[in-house]
Amino acid sequence: MKLATVRSGLGTTTVRIEGDHAVDLGITDLGLLLAEPDWQERAAAEGDELATADLDYAPLITNPGKIVCIGLNYRSHILETGHEIPEYPTVFAKWPETLLGARDDIQMAPESEKIDWEIELAVIIGKSVRRADEAEAAAAIAGFSVLNDISMRDWQRRSPMWDQGKNFENTTPLGPVMVTPDELPGGANPALDITCKVNDMVVQHDNTGDLVFGPVALVQYLSTFITLKPGDVIATGTTGGVGAARKPQLFLADGDIVTTHIDGIGTLINRAVAEQV
Amino acid sequence: MKLATVRSGLGTTTVRIEGDHAVDLGITDLGLLLAEPDWQERAAAEGDELATADLDYAPLITNPGKIVCIGLNYRSHILETGHEIPEYPTVFAKWPETLLGARDDIQMAPESEKIDWEIELAVIIGKSVRRADEAEAAAAIAGFSVLNDISMRDWQRRSPMWDQGKNFENTTPLGPVMVTPDELPGGANPALDITCKVNDMVVQHDNTGDLVFGPVALVQYLSTFITLKPGDVIATGTTGGVGAARKPQLFLADGDIVTTHIDGIGTLINRAVAEQV
Repeated sequence: MKLATVRSGLGTTTVRIEGDHAVDLGITDLGLLLAEPDWQERAAAEGDELATADLDYAPLITNPGKIVCIGLNYRSHILETGHEIPEYPTVFAKWPETLLGARDDIQMAPESEKIDWEIELAVIIGKSVRRADEAEAAAAIAGFSVLNDISMRDWQRRSPMWDQGKNFENTTPLGPVMVTPDELPGGANPALDITCKVNDMVVQHDNTGDLVFGPVALVQYLSTFITLKPGDVIATGTTGGVGAARKPQLFLADGDIVTTHIDGIGTLINRAVAEQV
Repeated sequence: MKLATVRSGLGTTTVRIEGDHAVDLGITDLGLLLAEPDWQERAAAEGDELATADLDYAPLITNPGKIVCIGLNYRSHILETGHEIPEYPTVFAKWPETLLGARDDIQMAPESEKIDWEIELAVIIGKSVRRADEAEAAAAIAGFSVLNDISMRDWQRRSPMWDQGKNFENTTPLGPVMVTPDELPGGANPALDITCKVNDMVVQHDNTGDLVFGPVALVQYLSTFITLKPGDVIATGTTGGVGAARKPQLFLADGDIVTTHIDGIGTLINRAVAEQV
């Protein structure tokens, strides 16, 4: 099942996508749908039909309670940043004001001169869990989506913590859809090709099967210390090929098109646009 | 004006405290009150009276949109951790599941063996601001509260980012009240004595006037990249005297009483209690 949150009239609505048409589920946000105990049933309901080609994607979850970000989670990116393979996940955070829809412009704030890409598999939580065992963790995963953790490298390096470089408003596309694990090879730990392009150049390419800490392990780990709740998002970390690690370095320029694709889920297409302040 | 969120019947309510009595403002949470454009007027309204001694404090804001944490912001703590005086604030994040009321027990998860204290002045935002100048930043501060950023040092050191050691559920008391700047010496950049005690031992003592980045400067800085919104909380960082920096190190034990006091605002009194899992 493929679900999305789309803009509609004055607000947003959740839809189920069935090829070239989508079914309006009559609930404003996928996060609210997932908070219903019987969300799978509600998601399978009938409703008004929309043309998939006309959908205006909102951020998949418009206001997640938590966006938990994982760093240093693909071998290729760990090596390019000079770190060793870690014993534990690296955890930081994003706030919801960062989020964009799948076709929205990435807002390039004039305060940063080093705006970089980071393709990531996003885990969407569908059930509250604390101290989950492996089976509980797998069952808590409602599905997967695509996220680009656009990073302001100059701000990321201003202090020992990265969070400020990861939290510029309107920078992080999330979507276009959530795909349930039953539709993906590998299920709750899917093995999917991921590819990030800037204009026509492939800058990142890997497979989610290469994650050091996979989705189920991450849900287990994070739920050790905090309850993961429906609509929470885990950004599982990026792979090698970021602009800051290239020689010479390469960053986004006004007008660049960032294409963030995960096989079996979908594609984010976002233009980087210099913000007028 | 002193405002608080207290538990009442099935939920919570916001009160204004006037010495030995409190006035029920009939709105469930201080964060919701602050989201009203005329919140100062609403906060001054009449209502049912409660005895202050009977109040059961909830977290001051029960579900903040953002809890922005600042590290390394008092000279004494910067030096004890071996860092240099920074050019920019260090920013990380807490999620709302960490929050406790002013008299609630600190839940000591058995997964951590190094649970430490960090007294902090909390800034409460009362107005949306982005790219605030100094005057706008000062006007966006609704008031100040007390927070203890209880930190699981073993988890904090597991990865380059600290966030996982700062986000154990039910560990972070916030309250008991918010005091508006007009009642504090120094106003929007108040100079207040702060004292953290464990049982009868003073472990931290400083003055908020010694912050490297004061409240107004922090609102300006953070609003450069993200909109600060009513009910958002900024934890401004802790001072010297944390347990991890002592020789020998000292951490919380089951039954310890943590008393977190800021002159002119109030006192958090929280017992550390080993969680039964």
